[in-house]
Amino acid sequence: MLITNSELLAMDRRYRGNLINALQGYKPANLIGSISAKGQSNVALFSSVVHIGANPPLIGFIQRPVTTERHTWENIQETGYYTINQVNKNIYRQAHQTSARYNRKDSEFTACGLTEEYLHQFKAPFVKESLLKIGVKFIEACPITINNTFLVVGSIEMVEIPDTWLLPDGDIDMDAADLVSVSGLYTYHKASKLEKLPYAKAK
Amino acid sequence: MLITNSELLAMDRRYRGNLINALQGYKPANLIGSISAKGQSNVALFSSVVHIGANPPLIGFIQRPVTTERHTWENIQETGYYTINQVNKNIYRQAHQTSARYNRKDSEFTACGLTEEYLHQFKAPFVKESLLKIGVKFIEACPITINNTFLVVGSIEMVEIPDTWLLPDGDIDMDAADLVSVSGLYTYHKASKLEKLPYAKAK
Repeated sequence: MLITNSELLAMDRRYRGNLINALQGYKPANLIGSISAKGQSNVALFSSVVHIGANPPLIGFIQRPVTTERHTWENIQETGYYTINQVNKNIYRQAHQTSARYNRKDSEFTACGLTEEYLHQFKAPFVKESLLKIGVKFIEACPITINNTFLVVGSIEMVEIPDTWLLPDGDIDMDAADLVSVSGLYTYHKASKLEKLPYAKAK
Repeated sequence: MLITNSELLAMDRRYRGNLINALQGYKPANLIGSISAKGQSNVALFSSVVHIGANPPLIGFIQRPVTTERHTWENIQETGYYTINQVNKNIYRQAHQTSARYNRKDSEFTACGLTEEYLHQFKAPFVKESLLKIGVKFIEACPITINNTFLVVGSIEMVEIPDTWLLPDGDIDMDAADLVSVSGLYTYHKASKLEKLPYAKAK
C-alpha cells in the first residue's frame, strides 16, 4: 500500500512514531555510558549509532532536540567523554528499561540492573555486562537544522573486545558476539549469519 | 583485549576498516536509488541509514567524502530526490554487488541484476525486488568537518509497504518482512524476533 507524506503527517503521533522508526529495518542496539562533572553516572539506549569513518576512527549518533533534560548529552558536554557498549542477548531488557524517564539524581545503571565499570583510566563508565565496548572522545556536534536534532561525532579512543571475537581480517564474529538488533522502538532480534561475501568488483 | 587509538591508527588500512565498520553491531541494509538529470539511473548499498525524526518524517545517511565520483550524491544534487529500499533475503547478493565501482554510464540496476521501477510519479527509481520502499526528498547536507563526510537528511515523501507487514500500532512485522542486516563490510544476517517490549516507564 502507498502511504503519502500528508497521510504520515495526519497519523496519530504514536502510530507515526512507530512506523517511521521501523522503516529502515534492523538497527544496532547500543548503550551510551556517561558521567557528569559531579560524578553522577548515566546510561541510555540508542539505536542511531552510525559509522563515520575508519581513518581516523570515528563514530556518531543522533541526539534528539534539547528541549528537555538530556542527561547523556549534558554529561558529554561537561566531560568530553562517553562510552558505546553493544547490547547482547543477556541484557536487552535492562537496556530497553534505560529508555524510561529517570530523575537526574538516579543512575540508570542502578535503576535498570546494569553495572558501571571503569577501565584503563577512561573518563566515562562502561557497561560491565556488555563485552564489546568503545571509549569515545567528543569531537563535534553537527546541527540538523530542520528538526533541531544533531549528529554527535566522536573519536574512537579505545576498544575492549574478547580476543576470540576478532577474525583474522579485522572483522568481528557476530555469531560469537551474540548481539541483538532493534526494530522500531520496542522489538529486539537475534541474528544468524547468511553469508560473508567477497569485496565486490565490477565484472 | 584492549585496542587503543594509536594501535587502531597503526593497523593495516583494510584490517582497520573491517574492524571499525563492525564495531557498532548489526546495521540496516538499504539500497539508495537515484537518477541523473540526463536520465542515468544508479543504485548503491548503504549501511548508514539512520532515523532523524518522525514529525516531520525524516531519514538520513552518511555520505563519504566527495574526493572521487559519487554517483548517488551527484544525482541527488541534480534532481533533489532519491529512494531508500530495504534489502531482503532474496536480493542481498545483488545489493552487495552494487558496492563495486562501476562507470558512470553503467546503471548498477542492470549490472547487478536489480530492476528499476517508477511508482506514483516519484522522480527517482525504486528497486522493484525490494518490498519496503521509501521516496525521499533532499532537505540538507550536514557537514562533518573532521573527515569531510556529511549527513544527508531527507524528508519521507512516500512509503510503499505490503499491507500485511503493518502491525496495528504502526510498527512493522520484521519477521514477515524477511529483511537482512549487515555487519562490517561484507557479512549479511537474517534475524528472528526475541521479544517486543512495552514502552519503558521508571518503576
